[in-house]
Amino acid sequence: MIQTSNKFDVLGIGNAIVDVLSFCEDDFLKNNDLAKGSMMLVDQERSKFLYARMGQSTECSGGSVANSLAGIASLGARTAFIGKVAGDQLGAIFTHDMRAVGVHFDTSPTKGDISTANCLVLVTPDAQRTMATFIGACSLVSEHDIDELLIAQSAITYIEGYLWDTENAKAAIRKATRVAKKAGKKIAFTLSDTFCVERHRAEFLDLIKHEVDILFANESEIKALFETEDFTAATKKLRGMCDVAAVTRSEKGCVVLTKEGEQAVAAGPVGQVVDTTGAGDLFASGFLFGFTQGWELEKCAALGNRCAGHIITQLGARSQLPLKRLVA
Amino acid sequence: MIQTSNKFDVLGIGNAIVDVLSFCEDDFLKNNDLAKGSMMLVDQERSKFLYARMGQSTECSGGSVANSLAGIASLGARTAFIGKVAGDQLGAIFTHDMRAVGVHFDTSPTKGDISTANCLVLVTPDAQRTMATFIGACSLVSEHDIDELLIAQSAITYIEGYLWDTENAKAAIRKATRVAKKAGKKIAFTLSDTFCVERHRAEFLDLIKHEVDILFANESEIKALFETEDFTAATKKLRGMCDVAAVTRSEKGCVVLTKEGEQAVAAGPVGQVVDTTGAGDLFASGFLFGFTQGWELEKCAALGNRCAGHIITQLGARSQLPLKRLVA
Repeated sequence: MIQTSNKFDVLGIGNAIVDVLSFCEDDFLKNNDLAKGSMMLVDQERSKFLYARMGQSTECSGGSVANSLAGIASLGARTAFIGKVAGDQLGAIFTHDMRAVGVHFDTSPTKGDISTANCLVLVTPDAQRTMATFIGACSLVSEHDIDELLIAQSAITYIEGYLWDTENAKAAIRKATRVAKKAGKKIAFTLSDTFCVERHRAEFLDLIKHEVDILFANESEIKALFETEDFTAATKKLRGMCDVAAVTRSEKGCVVLTKEGEQAVAAGPVGQVVDTTGAGDLFASGFLFGFTQGWELEKCAALGNRCAGHIITQLGARSQLPLKRLVA
Repeated sequence: MIQTSNKFDVLGIGNAIVDVLSFCEDDFLKNNDLAKGSMMLVDQERSKFLYARMGQSTECSGGSVANSLAGIASLGARTAFIGKVAGDQLGAIFTHDMRAVGVHFDTSPTKGDISTANCLVLVTPDAQRTMATFIGACSLVSEHDIDELLIAQSAITYIEGYLWDTENAKAAIRKATRVAKKAGKKIAFTLSDTFCVERHRAEFLDLIKHEVDILFANESEIKALFETEDFTAATKKLRGMCDVAAVTRSEKGCVVLTKEGEQAVAAGPVGQVVDTTGAGDLFASGFLFGFTQGWELEKCAALGNRCAGHIITQLGARSQLPLKRLVA
């Protein structure tokens, strides 16, 4: 195996989405059958229905791994992204926002009528976010979008569980992991969402055991993965399934699991919490940035906590200010 | 003259714009010949050039009078808006955001290639905003978009100085003021921007003398209007030219001028100032809301100050939370 030198620290593969964020009362979720805190997939008709009922909104680029990559770039590492937008205004916004923070992004946009994905993000007074995603052009990402050289030149390829929701994307991921492994590079993976874990449990377990080096998840997601309500039981099962697992626990910070042991890393002080959108994504930004710099895992986790703590003090999952200042 | 009963408290006529907001350093303005604090008109090529150099952005509906109208609706009055978007995604966003706060808005979108207007809003570390506007579909608003019945049914028709930048819009405004006056309704007008005043001084002076009942302006704009550096000299000239003039002075609050006298109304306490975009627009929201409720001018001005003080603590000129809570 000849290891290619790394042009990028982290390459992300994920859904390319523009978020449409709006504050609402809890009643809005109840009246529209939206499960609080989760991500639901909706078709275009349902998306339009919900949007027409939502309040005044703010648009901001999103997508889980895309948010993480924008964060890693903003922290100062070399990044690239593969994801599918359409040739429309939302696609131009997503593309601009990736490139503006320095992410290499040149996946060809789709042609035709299908529009760029959007995610309706409803933020309740407790700052929790509930998401309804119309996957749009993301459903057309395919093996052909997986640039083998790009993957071979990236130290880590980071992929999101949400990609398992479309068959095309799964084929793309299989190719990507194969190329990364062959090039001797690492695979990072996020479980994405509790419902997403429910939909793809067997495949996720298989992937974690055989392909993943670094896993990101939150407490609910690993409980869902192992079908238990017992967090300790879940971490016990997870330990040793991959090299590193970083499990976030909101205000409790996170737990880092390795074959050697586990370590809790407390969250630092956080300002006024406005919107939790992107907390997990930005945790991964901080953690992976540290990892690419060769930091101890505890220090990686601490930066992850700081990035997560920062993003929840603003609306949207893309930091309005450069994240470099969080690297102390 | 038969006065039609009022279906709407305020009808706004203005540019229908989506703002693209981004934080930047002062150097960005200097390097790109942008006059700090002003609004510059740019063509599509220049807009794309600047956008490609701007940082990660957030999109939010904008437009000066449109912002004011969204604010008045959020405060609880009955509002309508006339403005031109294209049949594209940004147009759909603008339309959604007006209707979502309860503004009646049904101007037909343009057809063809010209896109919805966008305004690149660059926010510097002092929270000042500098704007580069590509006017797009707004340039196609015309007399045909002026619904006479809508104007005759509105207690106040509010128009912006920015409309004088396109000939079509000027013709539309002439029709609107004629209809409003004939129906015995009031005209409110904002000077919009210092450079805008420089471009259209003679026409603005003529309009204020003969058509305007309520004028909104800031200190710099009335100085530009009367070509003086002396604020007191400017207010002296302005007094009596129209029934009411509300002149904002940033942290000093505002001065309300009437034929009978003038009254300074101090600004209240303001939280952390993030972005001054929309301060003047939201002052007009509070003032006009109070006016439609029959309040004393001092109370109108105090609510204007509160609305302005609120909007500058968030990014963008549309309040993320309902403004009703500011009505004490």
